[in-house]
Amino acid sequence: MAEKTSAEVIIGGKVYTLSGYEGEEYLQRVATYINNKINEFNNMEELRRLSGDMKATLIQLNIADDYFKARTQVEKLEQEIEQKDKEIYDLKHDLISNQIKAESDEKELKELEAKNQELLLNKAKLEASLEDALLGKVTKGKKTESKKTEE
Amino acid sequence: MAEKTSAEVIIGGKVYTLSGYEGEEYLQRVATYINNKINEFNNMEELRRLSGDMKATLIQLNIADDYFKARTQVEKLEQEIEQKDKEIYDLKHDLISNQIKAESDEKELKELEAKNQELLLNKAKLEASLEDALLGKVTKGKKTESKKTEE
Repeated sequence: MAEKTSAEVIIGGKVYTLSGYEGEEYLQRVATYINNKINEFNNMEELRRLSGDMKATLIQLNIADDYFKARTQVEKLEQEIEQKDKEIYDLKHDLISNQIKAESDEKELKELEAKNQELLLNKAKLEASLEDALLGKVTKGKKTESKKTEE
Repeated sequence: MAEKTSAEVIIGGKVYTLSGYEGEEYLQRVATYINNKINEFNNMEELRRLSGDMKATLIQLNIADDYFKARTQVEKLEQEIEQKDKEIYDLKHDLISNQIKAESDEKELKELEAKNQELLLNKAKLEASLEDALLGKVTKGKKTESKKTEE
C-alpha cells in the first residue's frame, strides 16, 4: 500500500501543508503549475480590476479547461488504440491463414517431388527395358530362342 | 476559423460571462464540473473552517490533480500506441515476406506439375513403345521381317 506523504507548498504566497499518495515531488509540480497560472493572470492588465474571488474562479476555469482538453485527448487516443487493436487482430488472422496455406503448399510440393522422383526412376527402367526389347533380348508371350539377325 | 462564443455561467453562486472558441455547451460543462467540486468541498466538515481564499486554492489543487492524472494517462496511451505501431509494422513485414515465399512456392508447384505431366506423357509413350517392342513389332538395328511365333 502506498504511503501517504505530507509536503509544504507555497501557492499564491500562502503556505499549505498537503498530504497525498503521490509524493512530495508531485505536489511541488502541481503547486508550481498553479503558481504559474496565478502569475499569468496577475500579468494580464484586463484582470487587474477583478476581486480575489473572481480571479481564483477564473483560474479554476482555466485549469479545468486544461483538464477537459487532456480528457478529450485521452478519449481520442483510446479510440486510436481500438482501431490499431483491430488492425493487429486482422493482420494476425491473415498471417495465420497464410501459414496454413504455406504448410499445405509445402506438403503438396513434397508429394509432387516424390512423385516426380518415382516417375524419373520409372522412366529410367522403362528406357532400359525398351533398349533390351529393341535389341531382341526379350519378347512377350511364348519364349523363343533369340535369333541374331544375319548381316 | 472557429467563432468565439460568449456564455453566461454561474460558478459558486456568482455569474460570469465567459468567451471561448469551444461553444456554450462546453463552457456549461466546465462550470458544472467546478460547481460539483465546490459542493464536494462545502460538504466536507474538516474544510468548513477554512477561508474562502484557501478553499478556492484547494479546489485549484484538486482540479490540477485531475489534470495531471489525465496527462499521465495521455503519456501512457501514447507509449502504448508506439508499441502497437511497431507491432503492426512487424506484422506487415512478416506478411509481405510470407507472400513473397508463397508466390515462389506457387511458381515452383506449377513448374513441378508441368514437369510431372510431361513425365506422365513420356511414360505412356515409353510403355506403348515397350509393348510394341515386346510383341516383336520393332527391333533396333537392321530391319527384319516380323516373325510370328508358331504355336
